[in-house]
Amino acid sequence: MPKRKSDRPRRHRIRNPRRIVPGAAPGTLRIDENAPPPRLRVTAYDDRGAFFDQEISRVEELVALREKYATVWIDVIGLGDAALLQALAAELGLHKLTLEDVVNLGQRPKAEVYPDYIYVVARAAPDRPGEHFEQISLVLGEGWVLTVQEHPQNPFDPVRRRLAEKESPIRSRGADYLLYALLDSILDPYFPLLDVVRDRLQGLEDESLERPEQATLGHIRSLRTDLLELRRVVAPHREAVHTLLRGELPRIGDQARLYLADTYDHVVQILELVEAYRELGSDLMNVYLTSVSNKMNEVMKVLTIIATIFIPLSFVAGIYGMNFDTGSPWNMPELSWRFGYPAVLGGMAAALIGLVLYFRRKGWL
Amino acid sequence: MPKRKSDRPRRHRIRNPRRIVPGAAPGTLRIDENAPPPRLRVTAYDDRGAFFDQEISRVEELVALREKYATVWIDVIGLGDAALLQALAAELGLHKLTLEDVVNLGQRPKAEVYPDYIYVVARAAPDRPGEHFEQISLVLGEGWVLTVQEHPQNPFDPVRRRLAEKESPIRSRGADYLLYALLDSILDPYFPLLDVVRDRLQGLEDESLERPEQATLGHIRSLRTDLLELRRVVAPHREAVHTLLRGELPRIGDQARLYLADTYDHVVQILELVEAYRELGSDLMNVYLTSVSNKMNEVMKVLTIIATIFIPLSFVAGIYGMNFDTGSPWNMPELSWRFGYPAVLGGMAAALIGLVLYFRRKGWL
Amino acid sequence: MPKRKSDRPRRHRIRNPRRIVPGAAPGTLRIDENAPPPRLRVTAYDDRGAFFDQEISRVEELVALREKYATVWIDVIGLGDAALLQALAAELGLHKLTLEDVVNLGQRPKAEVYPDYIYVVARAAPDRPGEHFEQISLVLGEGWVLTVQEHPQNPFDPVRRRLAEKESPIRSRGADYLLYALLDSILDPYFPLLDVVRDRLQGLEDESLERPEQATLGHIRSLRTDLLELRRVVAPHREAVHTLLRGELPRIGDQARLYLADTYDHVVQILELVEAYRELGSDLMNVYLTSVSNKMNEVMKVLTIIATIFIPLSFVAGIYGMNFDTGSPWNMPELSWRFGYPAVLGGMAAALIGLVLYFRRKGWL
Amino acid sequence: MPKRKSDRPRRHRIRNPRRIVPGAAPGTLRIDENAPPPRLRVTAYDDRGAFFDQEISRVEELVALREKYATVWIDVIGLGDAALLQALAAELGLHKLTLEDVVNLGQRPKAEVYPDYIYVVARAAPDRPGEHFEQISLVLGEGWVLTVQEHPQNPFDPVRRRLAEKESPIRSRGADYLLYALLDSILDPYFPLLDVVRDRLQGLEDESLERPEQATLGHIRSLRTDLLELRRVVAPHREAVHTLLRGELPRIGDQARLYLADTYDHVVQILELVEAYRELGSDLMNVYLTSVSNKMNEVMKVLTIIATIFIPLSFVAGIYGMNFDTGSPWNMPELSWRFGYPAVLGGMAAALIGLVLYFRRKGWL
Amino acid sequence: MPKRKSDRPRRHRIRNPRRIVPGAAPGTLRIDENAPPPRLRVTAYDDRGAFFDQEISRVEELVALREKYATVWIDVIGLGDAALLQALAAELGLHKLTLEDVVNLGQRPKAEVYPDYIYVVARAAPDRPGEHFEQISLVLGEGWVLTVQEHPQNPFDPVRRRLAEKESPIRSRGADYLLYALLDSILDPYFPLLDVVRDRLQGLEDESLERPEQATLGHIRSLRTDLLELRRVVAPHREAVHTLLRGELPRIGDQARLYLADTYDHVVQILELVEAYRELGSDLMNVYLTSVSNKMNEVMKVLTIIATIFIPLSFVAGIYGMNFDTGSPWNMPELSWRFGYPAVLGGMAAALIGLVLYFRRKGWL
Repeated sequence: MPKRKSDRPRRHRIRNPRRIVPGAAPGTLRIDENAPPPRLRVTAYDDRGAFFDQEISRVEELVALREKYATVWIDVIGLGDAALLQALAAELGLHKLTLEDVVNLGQRPKAEVYPDYIYVVARAAPDRPGEHFEQISLVLGEGWVLTVQEHPQNPFDPVRRRLAEKESPIRSRGADYLLYALLDSILDPYFPLLDVVRDRLQGLEDESLERPEQATLGHIRSLRTDLLELRRVVAPHREAVHTLLRGELPRIGDQARLYLADTYDHVVQILELVEAYRELGSDLMNVYLTSVSNKMNEVMKVLTIIATIFIPLSFVAGIYGMNFDTGSPWNMPELSWRFGYPAVLGGMAAALIGLVLYFRRKGWL
Repeated sequence: MPKRKSDRPRRHRIRNPRRIVPGAAPGTLRIDENAPPPRLRVTAYDDRGAFFDQEISRVEELVALREKYATVWIDVIGLGDAALLQALAAELGLHKLTLEDVVNLGQRPKAEVYPDYIYVVARAAPDRPGEHFEQISLVLGEGWVLTVQEHPQNPFDPVRRRLAEKESPIRSRGADYLLYALLDSILDPYFPLLDVVRDRLQGLEDESLERPEQATLGHIRSLRTDLLELRRVVAPHREAVHTLLRGELPRIGDQARLYLADTYDHVVQILELVEAYRELGSDLMNVYLTSVSNKMNEVMKVLTIIATIFIPLSFVAGIYGMNFDTGSPWNMPELSWRFGYPAVLGGMAAALIGLVLYFRRKGWL
Repeated sequence: MPKRKSDRPRRHRIRNPRRIVPGAAPGTLRIDENAPPPRLRVTAYDDRGAFFDQEISRVEELVALREKYATVWIDVIGLGDAALLQALAAELGLHKLTLEDVVNLGQRPKAEVYPDYIYVVARAAPDRPGEHFEQISLVLGEGWVLTVQEHPQNPFDPVRRRLAEKESPIRSRGADYLLYALLDSILDPYFPLLDVVRDRLQGLEDESLERPEQATLGHIRSLRTDLLELRRVVAPHREAVHTLLRGELPRIGDQARLYLADTYDHVVQILELVEAYRELGSDLMNVYLTSVSNKMNEVMKVLTIIATIFIPLSFVAGIYGMNFDTGSPWNMPELSWRFGYPAVLGGMAAALIGLVLYFRRKGWL
Repeated sequence: MPKRKSDRPRRHRIRNPRRIVPGAAPGTLRIDENAPPPRLRVTAYDDRGAFFDQEISRVEELVALREKYATVWIDVIGLGDAALLQALAAELGLHKLTLEDVVNLGQRPKAEVYPDYIYVVARAAPDRPGEHFEQISLVLGEGWVLTVQEHPQNPFDPVRRRLAEKESPIRSRGADYLLYALLDSILDPYFPLLDVVRDRLQGLEDESLERPEQATLGHIRSLRTDLLELRRVVAPHREAVHTLLRGELPRIGDQARLYLADTYDHVVQILELVEAYRELGSDLMNVYLTSVSNKMNEVMKVLTIIATIFIPLSFVAGIYGMNFDTGSPWNMPELSWRFGYPAVLGGMAAALIGLVLYFRRKGWL
Repeated sequence: MPKRKSDRPRRHRIRNPRRIVPGAAPGTLRIDENAPPPRLRVTAYDDRGAFFDQEISRVEELVALREKYATVWIDVIGLGDAALLQALAAELGLHKLTLEDVVNLGQRPKAEVYPDYIYVVARAAPDRPGEHFEQISLVLGEGWVLTVQEHPQNPFDPVRRRLAEKESPIRSRGADYLLYALLDSILDPYFPLLDVVRDRLQGLEDESLERPEQATLGHIRSLRTDLLELRRVVAPHREAVHTLLRGELPRIGDQARLYLADTYDHVVQILELVEAYRELGSDLMNVYLTSVSNKMNEVMKVLTIIATIFIPLSFVAGIYGMNFDTGSPWNMPELSWRFGYPAVLGGMAAALIGLVLYFRRKGWL
């Protein structure tokens, strides 16, 4: 089973989508031959109840399926076999550039309109911020939808469940509606992801206000980085969905376009939340700094109170510790008074009480 | 009676409008069956004085009312009965997607133009910032307006009062003017809400300047969050009202468009105020921090003054507390002088006065 | 005489332009019947020397004046009489909505093009920032200009003076040039207002750098609020003047349009200055905070120097104050040395001088 | 000779371009009659070698020159004579408004297209930031270019030198190329000006990092103000040059347009540098504040180390200074030990060494 | 061999692209005659296997090569010979302005469409941020591509390697594809450059959080400057590539345009990363400041604890050091108690323990 991207060290949160082989010719398939071979799962259906949902092993099986069923969804998981992918591209009539984009991970989310199909690149939301946003390719052709992902993801499960229901309205709609349903199922998990972000934000705010520690600073910084990355990944989806809406694309019917307008609203909502969280996150550093200042102020007050009270008192004690010759009547006559000591102690106590009252009035105590 | 949204805990102020059932098919009515059943209140009138204002229990009663009156306003409160809502949608010719948007709360404010009607989503202003902005749907059709809200709200009361007056000019105008009046009555309460925000802002500013406490920081932060949420909710109204103005929409006459231009001005004014308050709110943290610095500075000064005065004096007292053998004439002859003690005390007093004068000149006292 | 707006308490500097009677029908004239009745001053002239400048008491007198003179300027001061205003609107053919906007204060500055006239809302600059920006309505019709203001203002005085001069070129130009001259005379006082802002800014900067006090912080904050309000009021004028320039409006000739382009430049200059001052004002808080930090640093240095010098010296004095039995030759033999005391004093003086030199090298003294 | 603007006090760095006489009619020539009379220097040439470069005293001489030479450049320095300027305007067919803009200083940089000529307002770069940006008017007509400036400036010198060379390609090109060359020579000095800004920025950064003083803060603030003013002056040039490029202006040939595109690139580069410097300048305050914090921290450490070491030691010395009756064997028996004093001193030395080691491990020493 | 730009002192990181000779005529070739003479390397090929890759010494050799091969790439390295460059320009039909831009370094990245060719200015990424971004000119004509650079750069090596392979698909494509491949090879090294930036950012963050030193501040500042410069250089590439995509340029075929769309995506990704790093870099100063505050807080705590514990204890010791006459029973009777001394010591120990417990509860220990 492939190693999960989320095991990567946390430091590389803002990823650099550059080519793995520097100097590689653009326009080549960069297949990692150690990666697991792709698995092709085909779900085919029409509005009269015919239904097929199985993994196939050879691309040739597709021909019959495409003839028999009105809508065919080919879900490819894994990118380890260049020949198979090229056969698939040939069967579906994909342009060489599209295949390259499908295989060469690190594409910006986008929607491209080709004469025979529409190619959409999206990114799946991870479970936690800071993890990898996996690239998912979606291609909408005449009567078919192709989806390609590197590792098994669960976003498509709800769609598959709905397709499995015999009476589900999704079966009576075409490939364009399927594209919408799949896109929507990719974007939906961004909402729970944003919930996680909000909770972390709230937790860090509480921590900053109540017990700011050195580690808090690192956590705030890390959240800020995650939010920057999140925005960088989410923002281009907006333009991509807008491309599907705007053009009078022949592959997308009026009905599906209405639904895609809804998806567009979702992307905008996600972006607005990301922006709001970013602003709140950007404030957090100030909250933390101010909170630390507050604590320092509190410490300063204690120091000031103690020092302000005892330094003068110690001075008085020091006075009476001087070794002036008590022979002269002018030299510290208090020392030989009968109640000299209690008087001095009393004076000190009075000064102490006076200072405490003064500090209380100042609001420092 | 339904639980008010304002009872929600304060923490979740920036709400996540995601679907309640993750993985639910988009395009399904998510009815909370425990919610109270909808109540339909119909207000119908024409410009010759005919007037009807009553709750009806069956959708079928609408048919006769729509025939009899020129303008019919159907106000639905509560979303607890899918069948009734579907009957209503059928009667008014609403698209399935519109009904879904009406029922599935959490829509962005927007205006959508359908062939037979215009669908507007707005948000009601709560009484206090940080509370829930309830979704209100408005649909303008040929001779009718439909409004749907989750809980009973008072924004429509002024409109209803004006409709009840026989001579009110509102009765002589069509459904498009009614839409304008309702929209305006939804946006109007944002002004008192902004008054509350301004007062909180002013209060927090005073608090920050005069007696900054740890709690103040939390309140500033909370106000910032509320303002972010407020902007997020208000901003899309601008675009929505603009949609109504821009297009040469057949349902909206020239007269009503002039009035809607006024509503547009109001939305812009609200947004400008939100932005101005956001900037002021964003400064508040700095005001607070600076104010705390000022207080710390004041504390530091007291400490410095006390220490600077008494540490040298204590040192002098310490000198004369040394046990040098007074036998040698070089060892502290002052101790045996007749006026040694008063002289030292006098010297100390002189130093004290000198330091106080120095500090006063420095402006520290 | 009406109470000046500038007497309002300073706190409400960012004003909320909401309706006075919540729930009032939009589209009603909200006349404060206690307000003084309007005064109508009419200035009429043509390019052949005919000239009329008087207050009139009845709207009917206007008919004759409009027939006799090429250009008629009706200046209305005060809003206390709904009937009179409605008569005026009827005479001039104003739309009901225009009259409402004229009377209901709190409009955003704007320019609206009606079939028969152009309606402009502007705001007069107060003498000092933070005061009320009074709404002034200007309507340009065929051969007439109507201006309406709540209280007597002086911005129009220069225009009136120029009209009173027989040879003034203004008389030979039409109503469109008059509109330009009036608009320009409204915007001109913003420049001296900005001078006041610049002087306050400069004063606060000097105060922050030289003697930062707690009150300074409040003043900075107050200036920031005033600048925000100023921008909010000025910015829409830009769009308003642009509307007059852009359209091929039939009421505005090519000549007047050239002059209005100049007015547009002025509005842009005002806005640019406001923005520049806003940035400088936004920095001020940092200047203040940094200056306070500097002062604290200075205080800290004094404390550190005093403490660092005297704490070790006091320790030495403390040593020789210990009551060790001088019988043992190992116990503080210095005490009985002939020059023990001078030696200790000399050592202390040497340490003091050494520390002072050290601090001087560190740049702390 | 006129007083240089750079002698103005530094405080008025952001200048208010308002009219000198408040309430003056817009559209009047505001001539300062004490200003020196204008000097007219005419440079005329054609592509066959004819060349004329002299001051003329009467506008009438222009007629012959314009007939004789293909391209005539009239450079006016000084604005002190309204009659002469009006004669010049009449001769060249300038609109009254253009003449007003030429004379009334404080215009925003702009390009205005009149039927017979193109009017450009630019600002000359001063030698040092914070000084006056002198207004320069350029007018391009059929076969002539007029430039007007208040005081003698050197920006045109390089152009004049090139014109004086017989073989210079500039002579073989028309008036539009001359306009380009003049504009370019006005913008060129902004690059050395930006060098000065960069050096000041670098100097202030070094000063902030290495020896932050109170005066540094004022210098940073002053640089920030200068950069704001610089941006305010430079930014409108971009739009002005763009106007010359965009329109298919009949006075500007394709060749000259290609060169003007280069000028546009220069303006954009200047603006980008100003923006980059503004960002760096805006950070400087933080660098300064942080550096001051660092210094304070250093001071705090010294204080803490001294106090932490000597306060406990003094306490010990204080203990042995207590006057307990040595008669009781329980009362300070150490005092009469033979090696009591050396033992205490040794203990103190051990504590001192221990604390120093502790601080070194903490990294404070 | 030419001196590498990276040897320039670090201070001049934001470079001023102004002309070397102030007052030089725009539109002249500024050749540094001491620079090494240009070397012309020509790579020519067609899709039938013909291939040529050699340095040529005379421009005239080009004529035959252009006739023989379908696509000819002329790579010029070095700018030291004006005559050779002019001969080349004549041979390829370059406009005089293009040649000037090629030679006069300091151009903004841009794409200009001439009737016979397309001229693109790009900047090569240096190995480390803060170094020089070398200008590279690319010209696409009919069947040829010209590239000009000042110093030998390696970005073109991968392209050259691919061209050398006989079966490489690049040979079967035209000059437009070659332009794409070269542009892409220029932009590709920005990704490793951004990796270096990210690592420095990460390193500075760690340093700020864990051991903030004075030098760190300078490094942060330097990184900020480098990022500003990086953005200033990268941003115009976006517009340049967009120009190639947008227009229906006759020299660029549909196939190459698809590939250029990919290059556009890369530029956008680079810009997005630069922006993200800029935001993170802009936060760093705050992280540093906050971290320094934290350290100061820690120091303050130690000081406070020591002082708070020992100042009162020293006071007690001072009390018993007073020289009151022990004759009076009221004067310090404790001194003559049998267990006076142990009692006082015990009391002190108790106070010490109490204070330590108190501080621990406060969380300061």
